Amino acid sequence: MLIASSQSMHFEAPLPLQSGASIRAYELAFETYGTLNGDRSNAVLICHALNASHHVAGVYADQPQSAGWWDSMIGPGKPVDTNRFFVIGVNNLGSCFGSTGPMHAHPDSADGQVYGADFPVVTVEDWVDAQARLLDRLGIQTLAAVMGGSLGGMQALAWTLQYPARVRRAVVVASAPNLTAENIAFNEVARRAIVTDPDFHGGHFYRHGTVPKRGLRIARMIGHITYLSDDVMNAKFGRQLRSTVQEAAASSDYRYSTQEVEFQIESYLRYQGDKFADYFDANTYLLITRALDYFDPARRFGGSLTAALAPARSKFLLVSFVTDWRFAPARSREIVKALLDNQRDVSYAEIDAPHGHDAFLLDDKRYHSVVRSYFASLAAEVGV
Amino acid sequence: MLIASSQSMHFEAPLPLQSGASIRAYELAFETYGTLNGDRSNAVLICHALNASHHVAGVYADQPQSAGWWDSMIGPGKPVDTNRFFVIGVNNLGSCFGSTGPMHAHPDSADGQVYGADFPVVTVEDWVDAQARLLDRLGIQTLAAVMGGSLGGMQALAWTLQYPARVRRAVVVASAPNLTAENIAFNEVARRAIVTDPDFHGGHFYRHGTVPKRGLRIARMIGHITYLSDDVMNAKFGRQLRSTVQEAAASSDYRYSTQEVEFQIESYLRYQGDKFADYFDANTYLLITRALDYFDPARRFGGSLTAALAPARSKFLLVSFVTDWRFAPARSREIVKALLDNQRDVSYAEIDAPHGHDAFLLDDKRYHSVVRSYFASLAAEVGV
Repeated sequence: MLIASSQSMHFEAPLPLQSGASIRAYELAFETYGTLNGDRSNAVLICHALNASHHVAGVYADQPQSAGWWDSMIGPGKPVDTNRFFVIGVNNLGSCFGSTGPMHAHPDSADGQVYGADFPVVTVEDWVDAQARLLDRLGIQTLAAVMGGSLGGMQALAWTLQYPARVRRAVVVASAPNLTAENIAFNEVARRAIVTDPDFHGGHFYRHGTVPKRGLRIARMIGHITYLSDDVMNAKFGRQLRSTVQEAAASSDYRYSTQEVEFQIESYLRYQGDKFADYFDANTYLLITRALDYFDPARRFGGSLTAALAPARSKFLLVSFVTDWRFAPARSREIVKALLDNQRDVSYAEIDAPHGHDAFLLDDKRYHSVVRSYFASLAAEVGV
Repeated sequence: MLIASSQSMHFEAPLPLQSGASIRAYELAFETYGTLNGDRSNAVLICHALNASHHVAGVYADQPQSAGWWDSMIGPGKPVDTNRFFVIGVNNLGSCFGSTGPMHAHPDSADGQVYGADFPVVTVEDWVDAQARLLDRLGIQTLAAVMGGSLGGMQALAWTLQYPARVRRAVVVASAPNLTAENIAFNEVARRAIVTDPDFHGGHFYRHGTVPKRGLRIARMIGHITYLSDDVMNAKFGRQLRSTVQEAAASSDYRYSTQEVEFQIESYLRYQGDKFADYFDANTYLLITRALDYFDPARRFGGSLTAALAPARSKFLLVSFVTDWRFAPARSREIVKALLDNQRDVSYAEIDAPHGHDAFLLDDKRYHSVVRSYFASLAAEVGV
C-alpha cells in the first residue's frame, strides 16, 4: 500500500504568464512516490486534467478511501512502477485543490481579499513553466517521462516543446492538439451556466458568502455527458426508470412529470452535479476550461502542427480510445502524424474500450499493458 | 409564392391524455396549403419538432421574411407539391406558437390564471390523438401521408400505430424509435438549467412578471450543439476568434479572458441563446423535451420494436443523415428493420450530408429528390 502525503512549495519570484500578466508569491501543492535515484534520471511527472489534483496515487495514512485519481496506473508494481520510478504529481496554478488559486488571498491585497475573478488567466504553457520551476527546486534536470491524460496530455505535449532537452519520453493519453469548435462550445455553455448564476457575482461570490452551485451543477452535468460514450451510457442506464425502495411498485411506469426525476440517467447526473458543486470552485472551472480552449501549439505556425512539433526531441507514446468522442482517436492521430513528419520516435495505441473519454482513468488491460511495456523499456533505458 | 394564413379550431370536449389527466376547451392552430380533392384522398399532415409550429410553408401576406420552417420542402412544385397535395401543418398542444399551452388561461381557473407549470404532461401519442380530432373536423378520414422530422418523425410513426387505417404512407426523417440515455441526458441538463433559474418560480413565472431567460439560453445552447455535426461546426467556426469591426486589429490574438467572448463559436451560441430566450416559453420547453423522453413504442412490448410496429399498415419512407449524432442513422435502421420484420413496404435513404441533425431542415438535393420521388409515386397512387 502506497502512503501519500501532500507537500507544498512556495515560489516568491513572479512567474510571467502568456497573457502578459504574472503571478508571484504562489504555492504549488505536490506529492511524490518512490525514490529519486542517484543520477536523478528516474523522475516521472504526472500532469492532471480538469477535475483532479496532485494526489495521483496511493492513499493518505488516515483515509483508506482516499486513493489518488490515477492509482490504478501508478504505484508499486503498477504500469508506472514506483519501485523503479520517482513519480511527481503536481497541482496546477488556479486549481482549488491546494496550489494557489482564485480562493487564495491576493498578495497585493492590503486586507487579504482573495483573488476571485481577478486570478490571472493561466494556460497549459504557464502550467508547464510552473512545473519546470518545481523540478528545478527538486533538483531534477531531466524527466524520464512526462505523462498525462486529456488536458494532462496537452501539458505533456507542451513540455516536449518548451523544454525539449528536459524530457526523455512523453506519454499523451486521450488528448488532442487543440479543441474543436464543438469542444469549445461545450466549455462555453458550462461557463455561461456558471457566470449567469446570480450567485456568481462576477466571480467575487466569496465576499458575498454565496457559491454559484446552480451553474456548477449544470457545468458538471454537461461535462459528464461528454466524458462517457453513448454506448456505455446505454449499457449503464439505458432508459431505466428511477427506482427507490419506496417507489419499487411504481417504478415500472412513467409518472409523467417535467420536473421530477423519471429516468435513472437523470438521477445519476443530478447526483454528480450536486457532489461537484459542493467541492469545486467556480472560478477554477472557468480558468481550467479556458486553458483547454487556448491550447493550440500550431497556432503560431499558421495551423501547421508539423511545424509546431519540430522542436520536440522526446520519444512519444500516444494512446486514444475508440469510443472517446470528446478527444477522438483522429485527434491523437494528428499528433502522431505531425511527430512522424518530424522523424520522431512515436508509439501509438488505439484502444477499443467502451468507456468514452473516461477510459483513460480506468484500468483496461490492453491499455495498461501498453503503458507497462513502455515504462519497462524506459526503465531499461535509464537503468532502473 | 405560397401565401399562408394561420387558422384555429376550438375543441370543447376533453381529450384524454396518456398520463390519465385530460385537457378540455383547447385550441389547435393550423395552416393548410393546396386544395383538398373531391374524394379527400390527397391530404398530407406535417408534424413539427421541438422549436417549430404549424407555419410549415409559404409566407404570411404582409411579412415577406416569414417563410415556414419547411418551406424548402413544401410548396408548389416542391418535393411535397401543394399543386397536388392538400398539406396541413398543426401546432401541438403545449406549444407557445398558437395552440393551447402553458401561457394560456386554465379553463378551470375562476380568475383566468394561466396554466404555467400546471399544463398537463403531453406525449407524442396525445398529440397524434389531438391531430386526429382536427382531421375529423376537417372531414379527412384518410391521410395520403403523414410526415415529420426528428420529434415530428416520432409523431408520424405513432400515427401508423394509433390510426393504422387512416395513413397511406408515413415519412419519418432523422428520427428514432426512442431516446438514448445520452439524448435524455442532454434534455435533462437543459431542463435543470431552466428549472433552477431563480426566475422560473416553479413554472409560475408569468405571475411574477419574470422569464427564466438564463435557463432558456443555456437550454438552447446545448440544443444547438447537438443539432450540428462536429464537422460542420469546424467548417463554419473552427477556432476562429471573434472579430468585430472595432476589434479587427486585435482579433488575431487571444485576449485572455474567462468571461468575454473569445471564439466565434461562443458568440454564435450566445446569440442563438439570447434570441431563443426572447420568444420561447420555458414550460413549453420542459413539456416538449419530456414528450421526446417518453416516446418509446416498444416499451409496452418488452422492448421489442418489431412487436410494437406490428399494427402499422402504411408504406414507409425513412431518411437519416450520416453526420446526425443526435438521431444517428443506426436509430432509423432499427425502425427499418422492425418494419421489415413485419413485412411492411419500407424505403430507406441514408444521406451523406455534413450538417448533422439540422440536415433534415435543409435542402440537400439528394434528400429532396428522394422525397420528391416518393411523393410523385404517392400522387400516382391516389390519382392527383
